[in-house]
Amino acid sequence: MRATYMFGAGDVRVIDVPDPKLEQPTDAIVRIVAACVCGSDLHPYHSMAADENGKPMGHEFVGVVEETGAEVRTVKAGDLVIAPFAWQDNACDFCREGFQTSCRHGGFWAAGGIGGGQAEAVRVPQADGTLVKAPVETGSALLPSLLTLSDVFATGHHAAVRAGVNARTTVTVIGDGAVGLLAVLSAKRLGAERIILMGRHRARTDLGCEFGATDVVAERGQEGIAKVLELTSGDGTHTVLECVGHTPAYEQALGVARVGGVISRVGVPQYTDGDIGWNLFGRNLTLTGGPAPVRHYIDELLPDVLSGAVDPGRVFDRTVSLEQTPDAYRAMDAREALKVLVRP
Amino acid sequence: MRATYMFGAGDVRVIDVPDPKLEQPTDAIVRIVAACVCGSDLHPYHSMAADENGKPMGHEFVGVVEETGAEVRTVKAGDLVIAPFAWQDNACDFCREGFQTSCRHGGFWAAGGIGGGQAEAVRVPQADGTLVKAPVETGSALLPSLLTLSDVFATGHHAAVRAGVNARTTVTVIGDGAVGLLAVLSAKRLGAERIILMGRHRARTDLGCEFGATDVVAERGQEGIAKVLELTSGDGTHTVLECVGHTPAYEQALGVARVGGVISRVGVPQYTDGDIGWNLFGRNLTLTGGPAPVRHYIDELLPDVLSGAVDPGRVFDRTVSLEQTPDAYRAMDAREALKVLVRP
Repeated sequence: MRATYMFGAGDVRVIDVPDPKLEQPTDAIVRIVAACVCGSDLHPYHSMAADENGKPMGHEFVGVVEETGAEVRTVKAGDLVIAPFAWQDNACDFCREGFQTSCRHGGFWAAGGIGGGQAEAVRVPQADGTLVKAPVETGSALLPSLLTLSDVFATGHHAAVRAGVNARTTVTVIGDGAVGLLAVLSAKRLGAERIILMGRHRARTDLGCEFGATDVVAERGQEGIAKVLELTSGDGTHTVLECVGHTPAYEQALGVARVGGVISRVGVPQYTDGDIGWNLFGRNLTLTGGPAPVRHYIDELLPDVLSGAVDPGRVFDRTVSLEQTPDAYRAMDAREALKVLVRP
Repeated sequence: MRATYMFGAGDVRVIDVPDPKLEQPTDAIVRIVAACVCGSDLHPYHSMAADENGKPMGHEFVGVVEETGAEVRTVKAGDLVIAPFAWQDNACDFCREGFQTSCRHGGFWAAGGIGGGQAEAVRVPQADGTLVKAPVETGSALLPSLLTLSDVFATGHHAAVRAGVNARTTVTVIGDGAVGLLAVLSAKRLGAERIILMGRHRARTDLGCEFGATDVVAERGQEGIAKVLELTSGDGTHTVLECVGHTPAYEQALGVARVGGVISRVGVPQYTDGDIGWNLFGRNLTLTGGPAPVRHYIDELLPDVLSGAVDPGRVFDRTVSLEQTPDAYRAMDAREALKVLVRP
């Protein structure tokens, strides 16, 4: 089959690889119907050391089950399924506590012998714990929105949930990528009435406003902080959803958080050390967040997607074939595209 | 009157200063009955640059109201009162949200023209919002326990509350100072059944066990982390109460926190940057804590002190006169004393 591999920074290719096969009785083989490129895929696109073996790419996909192992009970051949960006048994204590990305028997796509989602098919470990059946046809117009349940919508939701967003909390969202925009949508869905979006790409922040942002701050750094403080009587907001992952975004978050507030990070931190001294401590701020336990949230979010109450699939502004995936990376890196959907 | 001043690292003196006087109609003058030296007073004791004017010391005290300004309504001359380590109006929005240490009209003792508690008397700004009447006589045996409501008991309680300690959460407390021991007592009081105390001073950890610690780990660093993991099937605890304030304590906290857990800091951080990369983010850990909003907690904690349900005053293992305060610093710094009570 054909699959997308990265061989080093800027070097993405679609190559021939062996078809995936069932290995464990808990496995399923899924034929990919729609996948996409993630903002986090751009991190290795910038920094990966050259590797002649390459690594498979992609961790978001919707597909049709082709074959299941003997112990798989909840999905069967022909089902259209959504796959979270991590696989898990959804049964261990960490999963039951709502931290599926730390499943004792789980892992991530494109690692440890498991393929990636930017491919024609993939072996899914722990299929019962991982896959969620979506009651639509493969041709459904809902497919892009269902695909966002793999990662970006659930991740934006996680940012808002961990921050404790509700109707009484003011919100700042940092970042106008797909996750940031869906953090706006998630905050709105959880009842927030005041949502300040920090982002400087007009087409994106316009979509953010349609998703529920009430204010847009295009400035960054100290200037951006000053602007948010100006919008909030000098106080900042109760919650800050940090959807970028770089140090300047964290520093902005610190600057715009209100006394007693929460900074919730879902942008994978591309740094180790950060300021957690008096700036965080002195005002009783809380720093939370992490990889979204997508599986934990799909049951709650899926009905709103199916009913059309929300339309998170609007973050996709381009569609390519599998063979064009390398160009999808290029276009997202050049910010020509917000998020690219891949149709194998 | 006589008051304790610090003139530089290791240089504490009791000197003559003018008697405090009412300055605002919201002020009260309080004659100190009992004060104490705080672990956090040892930070400047180690590092303060020489200053010939010195700075007043002390932020924990119980006293008797001598005189009140025209607008003071809730306390009157003769009342025995407890003073939180910060003063506040207890009426602004930050106070009402439970963050009294960030009061819009508040501040800290021994700063901005306000004296310290290690003195014969002090001017109390915002007396109505700051002072809490204790219905006992000045000779009461409860005085040491009431004094812990100024800071250390309320601070330990804050660590436990912000961490979300309850009957279902396992707890690690880092630090066997007065705050650490009272964090143990607080966790126990909130229902925790498993409380691991990390500390290496036997007399202190013995008291910790009487307060509710179920396990003591004397090792520090990687060895200490390994020991806690060994006690928790390799997982760590749901909550970690960091009661020290130095980087190694934070690193221990990171090492012993369970997936999805909370690190709650109440030791004032003596550092700025710390590890908030994948070690914190990858396991969905939350970092919280800050200066305890003591005034917010006194109403809840005072009845348990008055009834004898808890006896936090046991952290005092030495009593000195005001003139002996310099020796109290020395003894606490040398770890001869856990916490020294000062009787002006």
